[in-house]
Amino acid sequence: MLKDIHHKIDSLFPEMVETRRYLHQYPEVSFKEVKTAKYIADFYEELQIPYQAKIGGNGVIATLKGGKPGKTVALRADFDALPIQDEKDVPYKSKVDGVMHACGHDGHTATLLMLAKTMKSFQEDLPGTIEFVHQHAEEYAPGGAKPIVESGALDHVDAVFGTHLWATTPLGVMQTSKNVFMAGADRFEITIQGEGGHGAYPHETKDAIVIASQLITQLQQIVSRRIDPLETAVVTIGIFEAGDAFNIIADKAKLVGTVRYLNTDIQEEVITEMEKIIKGVCVTNDASYTFDYVKGYPPLVNHEQEAELVLEASKNIDEIHTAEEVVPVMGGEDFTYYTIAKPGAYFFTGAHKEGNDYPHHHPKFDIDERALPIAAKTLIEAYFLYQKKTS
Amino acid sequence: MLKDIHHKIDSLFPEMVETRRYLHQYPEVSFKEVKTAKYIADFYEELQIPYQAKIGGNGVIATLKGGKPGKTVALRADFDALPIQDEKDVPYKSKVDGVMHACGHDGHTATLLMLAKTMKSFQEDLPGTIEFVHQHAEEYAPGGAKPIVESGALDHVDAVFGTHLWATTPLGVMQTSKNVFMAGADRFEITIQGEGGHGAYPHETKDAIVIASQLITQLQQIVSRRIDPLETAVVTIGIFEAGDAFNIIADKAKLVGTVRYLNTDIQEEVITEMEKIIKGVCVTNDASYTFDYVKGYPPLVNHEQEAELVLEASKNIDEIHTAEEVVPVMGGEDFTYYTIAKPGAYFFTGAHKEGNDYPHHHPKFDIDERALPIAAKTLIEAYFLYQKKTS
Amino acid sequence: MLKDIHHKIDSLFPEMVETRRYLHQYPEVSFKEVKTAKYIADFYEELQIPYQAKIGGNGVIATLKGGKPGKTVALRADFDALPIQDEKDVPYKSKVDGVMHACGHDGHTATLLMLAKTMKSFQEDLPGTIEFVHQHAEEYAPGGAKPIVESGALDHVDAVFGTHLWATTPLGVMQTSKNVFMAGADRFEITIQGEGGHGAYPHETKDAIVIASQLITQLQQIVSRRIDPLETAVVTIGIFEAGDAFNIIADKAKLVGTVRYLNTDIQEEVITEMEKIIKGVCVTNDASYTFDYVKGYPPLVNHEQEAELVLEASKNIDEIHTAEEVVPVMGGEDFTYYTIAKPGAYFFTGAHKEGNDYPHHHPKFDIDERALPIAAKTLIEAYFLYQKKTS
Amino acid sequence: MLKDIHHKIDSLFPEMVETRRYLHQYPEVSFKEVKTAKYIADFYEELQIPYQAKIGGNGVIATLKGGKPGKTVALRADFDALPIQDEKDVPYKSKVDGVMHACGHDGHTATLLMLAKTMKSFQEDLPGTIEFVHQHAEEYAPGGAKPIVESGALDHVDAVFGTHLWATTPLGVMQTSKNVFMAGADRFEITIQGEGGHGAYPHETKDAIVIASQLITQLQQIVSRRIDPLETAVVTIGIFEAGDAFNIIADKAKLVGTVRYLNTDIQEEVITEMEKIIKGVCVTNDASYTFDYVKGYPPLVNHEQEAELVLEASKNIDEIHTAEEVVPVMGGEDFTYYTIAKPGAYFFTGAHKEGNDYPHHHPKFDIDERALPIAAKTLIEAYFLYQKKTS
Repeated sequence: MLKDIHHKIDSLFPEMVETRRYLHQYPEVSFKEVKTAKYIADFYEELQIPYQAKIGGNGVIATLKGGKPGKTVALRADFDALPIQDEKDVPYKSKVDGVMHACGHDGHTATLLMLAKTMKSFQEDLPGTIEFVHQHAEEYAPGGAKPIVESGALDHVDAVFGTHLWATTPLGVMQTSKNVFMAGADRFEITIQGEGGHGAYPHETKDAIVIASQLITQLQQIVSRRIDPLETAVVTIGIFEAGDAFNIIADKAKLVGTVRYLNTDIQEEVITEMEKIIKGVCVTNDASYTFDYVKGYPPLVNHEQEAELVLEASKNIDEIHTAEEVVPVMGGEDFTYYTIAKPGAYFFTGAHKEGNDYPHHHPKFDIDERALPIAAKTLIEAYFLYQKKTS
Repeated sequence: MLKDIHHKIDSLFPEMVETRRYLHQYPEVSFKEVKTAKYIADFYEELQIPYQAKIGGNGVIATLKGGKPGKTVALRADFDALPIQDEKDVPYKSKVDGVMHACGHDGHTATLLMLAKTMKSFQEDLPGTIEFVHQHAEEYAPGGAKPIVESGALDHVDAVFGTHLWATTPLGVMQTSKNVFMAGADRFEITIQGEGGHGAYPHETKDAIVIASQLITQLQQIVSRRIDPLETAVVTIGIFEAGDAFNIIADKAKLVGTVRYLNTDIQEEVITEMEKIIKGVCVTNDASYTFDYVKGYPPLVNHEQEAELVLEASKNIDEIHTAEEVVPVMGGEDFTYYTIAKPGAYFFTGAHKEGNDYPHHHPKFDIDERALPIAAKTLIEAYFLYQKKTS
Repeated sequence: MLKDIHHKIDSLFPEMVETRRYLHQYPEVSFKEVKTAKYIADFYEELQIPYQAKIGGNGVIATLKGGKPGKTVALRADFDALPIQDEKDVPYKSKVDGVMHACGHDGHTATLLMLAKTMKSFQEDLPGTIEFVHQHAEEYAPGGAKPIVESGALDHVDAVFGTHLWATTPLGVMQTSKNVFMAGADRFEITIQGEGGHGAYPHETKDAIVIASQLITQLQQIVSRRIDPLETAVVTIGIFEAGDAFNIIADKAKLVGTVRYLNTDIQEEVITEMEKIIKGVCVTNDASYTFDYVKGYPPLVNHEQEAELVLEASKNIDEIHTAEEVVPVMGGEDFTYYTIAKPGAYFFTGAHKEGNDYPHHHPKFDIDERALPIAAKTLIEAYFLYQKKTS
Repeated sequence: MLKDIHHKIDSLFPEMVETRRYLHQYPEVSFKEVKTAKYIADFYEELQIPYQAKIGGNGVIATLKGGKPGKTVALRADFDALPIQDEKDVPYKSKVDGVMHACGHDGHTATLLMLAKTMKSFQEDLPGTIEFVHQHAEEYAPGGAKPIVESGALDHVDAVFGTHLWATTPLGVMQTSKNVFMAGADRFEITIQGEGGHGAYPHETKDAIVIASQLITQLQQIVSRRIDPLETAVVTIGIFEAGDAFNIIADKAKLVGTVRYLNTDIQEEVITEMEKIIKGVCVTNDASYTFDYVKGYPPLVNHEQEAELVLEASKNIDEIHTAEEVVPVMGGEDFTYYTIAKPGAYFFTGAHKEGNDYPHHHPKFDIDERALPIAAKTLIEAYFLYQKKTS
């Protein structure tokens, strides 16, 4: 049957590309993916696969109950986009100003939809039940996975698999890990409250821009001096906002950023050191601050047995020439909430597009669309291996 | 006659306050003061004093030709506001979101309008001609004074006087200088072009926020180490803008600021050192930059004889108990273009409001409105002294 | 026989302690360990074990040829001290001002000498040949191991073992690795050449202290932003020297430091980034520089089979309750030159002294001397296991 | 008589040069000028002018009582040198390693000695009494002037004059001020106490070098942002000392420096802001500190009338073509203690040497020796004008 499934997937490649490109042109940022969710729901409606919408927010879960007995396995695709201006020069460029599918979630969605369409044809012979989990808001903590899990909608599920189309991994390569696969990713916001005033009288003010600049310079020492060199931590400020006029000294500066880590001890150390540095810089400058630290997705740890299934599944896909275990990837991923709740594994489907070397989250990011059917095949292979192993 | 003029001014105090408060509630930022200009023009229309509008932009000049011979003297008031959110808790608080008369130009305008109304009553006995110069766009270089002067509208003028209501000087104090009175004020914009990317992979990017923060830290050395300690310079960054998302490393940072100085050698040194530091920081980080430096208002140098007239005039105003010469004030002022073109003097009318110690350009800035009639009296006294001296 | 050897070692414990304490009181810094080398040579002289002195510098190698056939195995101990002021309050405190055995090499030497004395008693029954390698200058690259290896004195050796008494590891614990065990350690020296002058005229100078301070602040970004967060690098400035008088601006600043890394790609990246930053800071300040980077000890990589022998050996030592594989240790170690040339393994013998939590290279560093016989036993056990395995 | 005095001074020019060069070769640092004091005393001994040695330390005061009535006027020359390595290539280069007359005090001494020798010939006709004050330790606060004044040795003096040979002022130019002539100059010492350790384990330490580097970077903001831009302040770190070994993280850093200012309010502000910044940087880094701030010489304020005498005196010196009032000089000078106690004035005698543009305190500093007789003539002219004016 799997051979037939592969053929079916291949035959849907044009529609897969069309779907992905449609979504690519109409991206929606995290938690605001209303039209995308509608698009997905409509698809299942038309396909006559029962689904539930608004799961834990904008989530959509479609349920394909096979004709044969078996376990219930969730396959997950996320569908939100990023607040990035698309700078690619392609016909399917984003039509929404300042919003872009710069991480490939459009491809994930197209992959899962076409896999559903495929599997609908094989429903009778399908062992077990597939839950097609279309998840919103992966890019912005607290994310969509957590409320979906908490909604109870997956309580009956036995295992979960998911993949990320990975632009920096060559086509034909599958990567996963039997342990920590992706980093913990937190979000923080710091405001420095100084004292504003006329730009010509710095001595009567507390210049929030100068103070915040110092702070950023000092924060470098967390990673360079305060964390064990053998451990891993990243402290990134993604946004610096301060001041309204060139000749007015800003009273306030806002810094928003992210912390990445692989173990929670380091996470705690980073938080402690950040607070210490912020406090010290404010003492230095007689300023005050707020520091909101939102713990985001914990590190994504794959389950060993499910990861092995994915590695094994890869061997059955003609287009995959290499299936490898890799060191942890620093990007956070809320797939972790599924593997905390259930056995499961996450993997990367190599999707590097020749001639386009831009990383994820870059304004010129793009993928090789031939990766989509490969992703679909790997997911369904893992599904079947899981059924076989647990039958 | 001056005694009568003083009385008349005093009797107009309620209208002066009302006018100032009306303008305070409807502020307009530099170069966009269309309604304010209309308001002024309408006032002269009704007063039946001939005027010209749209001088050098939004400028309005009304001409009151006296019944007696004499010189032509311009009295100037500026009328633009600032992009600051009014945070005062008063009935006359700004009704325009994000815009505020945080420098007192509303008071300047009310003062000059009421002085015009006053002098209209004394037109027959008035020696010479008063040009009431209502100038737009003082807060934002290249400002309104320059195009007004360049328009030729003041070519026939013999001298010019102006005042600033000064919130940090006590009521009853008049301050001026016989030489450099206010600093040169320039505007610059720096963009740092790094390389953006995923917040978890700093090593694949050139983090524009970190680079710009370094730059700001380094720029402190211009004043602290590179300028003769006996000279005066200020380098202020008023705006820092970078990044769109907490987890994306910004590829670009924009810094906008101002430089203040008292002599042009120092101005040149500051520019040279800024460029050197920007360049060096970019070498350090393998980044690139743009640096636009717009020379703004040169230092305002009063003419000695006209400054002496102002000092003498102050003695005739009952409400002024102190008239003093002061060291240069660091704020720039485009009144300089008038004193470059014509003899003239600028002075501060003390306007500190008890219990409100916020400086100019502060969200809670305010003035003691009793300063308005004092300003009006000082201007008209200086006018008469000038007529007397030159007759 | 090993039981007897253990007993013999235990019986020599008082002499072991006495020897260690004697050496502790008379430390000599790297490459100047003339008296220590003499002390070691005299010991073998008296013991009537043939030895060679001045191997590759101050090295001493004693050769104990066993009565039975077997392989030739080197056991190594280093014997140099550090330029640190001893601040311990103990009877055996260093008597040399500013020099201290703050790393435990005194203990290494005492261990190896007593092991030699022990094995002399068992010479007849000993399979193979032990080379007791007493190495000078481990603390200061290029170190003593390299010239000893290059001297050819160990060309005939089949394997090499060595241990470090490790103050932060508990007594009774043995630690090693089957792969990278210790980091690469380099040394660099940077001089910043500014322009000196009177402390009151900064604008006529280029202040080398301010420039070098900036540089150090910037260098933090190598680790925090420019190296892959999953990789390991340390950049430490150990010495900052500048200026002679409080009121004279220094023309020159000297920075001396170390870089640690686990793989040579990262080493190259660090060097490249350091040079870029130094250059940029000099452009920023119109200064010049020299940058001497001396590549020191490469990472120490144990051979898997020899590391396994050490782990196995540990099981035969009563006092060792835990033998564990650990993540790489960041300190450099020139034992690497032996494992580059020959099969071998290095391990840590836990030597934490209760109540003394100071790390290696600290002015109050000390060890639990009961670790010395444990180290001796582990070395000789590994020796015997090696003989057995290769016979 | 003054003409004759000038001739006499000119005739002593060779001896003046010889004396200056002798002193130049045997410099002694502040408070250790024992041989120099002896040399001066011996000179007066031979000249048979009564003197007192060891005044307030190493000070020597010789008293020439004139044959005619008049006031008692002190003429002062300082004689200490600096801890600088002489890098000039001249026959009279310093013979003392690391010590140099890099400020011209050798010239001051030679000038005063030859003036004494000159005036000895005119003793009978001399009105009043000259006190030749040879002062030690001008370069290092608390200096020699204060204890000399406090010793009471000058209690009977009516006025005091002094000059500095000034290498950056052209020969033939005399400079002084009727008000603040030289800045206040303080000395401070900061120690940062972090926590030392192995260079490979920054996270177990508090790196004093990194902390002190941050501190220096932050201190730049005192002048750039916290002091009124119209005021004057300099904060210079002259010495940075930390660390003993390249691979050991320093536990302590010592910074020694100077503060310059023109008024004591600013002095207090600088001290307050320094402490705030040091404290804040220590909070940031969990470190501790000591901060010793030694107030040094207050600003040197000339007395108006005595300054006018110096300006007038200059007109009578053929070699002086320009006598000018100048803005304050940032270098501190303990001559201030004389003008606090007595009427007096200090001035600069232009001594720029063609082709040598090195400033005071530079390793290649030198003066044009033709300035010495000019200095002598100006001092004695001022003396006579003072006698005339007060008789």
